[in-house]
Amino acid sequence: MPLVTVKAIEGRTIEQKRGLVKDITEAVVKNFEAKPESVTVDIVEISRENFAKAGKLFADS
Amino acid sequence: MPLVTVKAIEGRTIEQKRGLVKDITEAVVKNFEAKPESVTVDIVEISRENFAKAGKLFADS
Amino acid sequence: MPLVTVKAIEGRTIEQKRGLVKDITEAVVKNFEAKPESVTVDIVEISRENFAKAGKLFADS
Amino acid sequence: MPLVTVKAIEGRTIEQKRGLVKDITEAVVKNFEAKPESVTVDIVEISRENFAKAGKLFADS
Amino acid sequence: MPLVTVKAIEGRTIEQKRGLVKDITEAVVKNFEAKPESVTVDIVEISRENFAKAGKLFADS
Amino acid sequence: MPLVTVKAIEGRTIEQKRGLVKDITEAVVKNFEAKPESVTVDIVEISRENFAKAGKLFADS
Repeated sequence: MPLVTVKAIEGRTIEQKRGLVKDITEAVVKNFEAKPESVTVDIVEISRENFAKAGKLFADS
Repeated sequence: MPLVTVKAIEGRTIEQKRGLVKDITEAVVKNFEAKPESVTVDIVEISRENFAKAGKLFADS
Repeated sequence: MPLVTVKAIEGRTIEQKRGLVKDITEAVVKNFEAKPESVTVDIVEISRENFAKAGKLFADS
Repeated sequence: MPLVTVKAIEGRTIEQKRGLVKDITEAVVKNFEAKPESVTVDIVEISRENFAKAGKLFADS
Repeated sequence: MPLVTVKAIEGRTIEQKRGLVKDITEAVVKNFEAKPESVTVDIVEISRENFAKAGKLFADS
Repeated sequence: MPLVTVKAIEGRTIEQKRGLVKDITEAVVKNFEAKPESVTVDIVEISRENFAKAGKLFADS
């Protein structure tokens, strides 16, 4: 039942997401001996106003 | 202080959400002996473009 | 694909957990029209040293 | 690598968010002896329709 | 800043984890055009007593 | 109802945790105009075997 969550700055295309979930699922199947059907991946897109590094919002960088 | 998070594909009505948080809270109170006021539930709605099973986006299914 | 996560102070018995996941799954099936097999629930147990309310650890309450 | 996530009802201004990520980052640096650059903070804004306490949606309060 | 979290039943070896984080990081770098240093992966291991599918704990399956 | 989660490498003392939750709670109260009693903070401690940066486990660094 591996459940993978990817948090990233918003703005990726559906092609990028399609490739990501395919490759991550393969990585889980290969390394954790999971069945493909048991793997879920969700992508959480975060706006630049809601994400910070070193105390500074990406919107201000 | 039980904190419950429900991730689901977007598109449920407020009536569905209202029923869900009521029933989940009752389940927590009953089984975990928590006070109702101490239970929070949040619902994270995920678009079909951001959720995948078996390496395939729901948007492509 | 509803994915439910319950965070709670550690120390519940397996009987309590068994009851909780059963009832929460039923709540999701009933309100969100999901198939039982599509619902996962995970319980995250947190020690009293790692959980705080109002700025105070449960271990200090 | 401390990763901080703040879930809150939606509607804060960017000024509030700017102040929050700055102060939280300082709190982590001070107490956990982390380097500022290693600290990330993300804010998850939740609508009143998706957040409940005591089994009741904030939208219904 | 992609932050990846993998929830899975406990019990994988460090070799399995080493392979997983390497492959997932490559998947993120390739598809989301992220720098390797910006990608973090954490693995959350869940006991069979704390994970359920279809309302049934893995410990009872 | 702000809910704050801090993920960090395991090994901090209770004094460090006590200070962290106090300061983070103050940061939320000050910037988000929340009541102290409404703020929860939980700390998720991750082993060096379960946390990676740039595709490499902390245990291997």
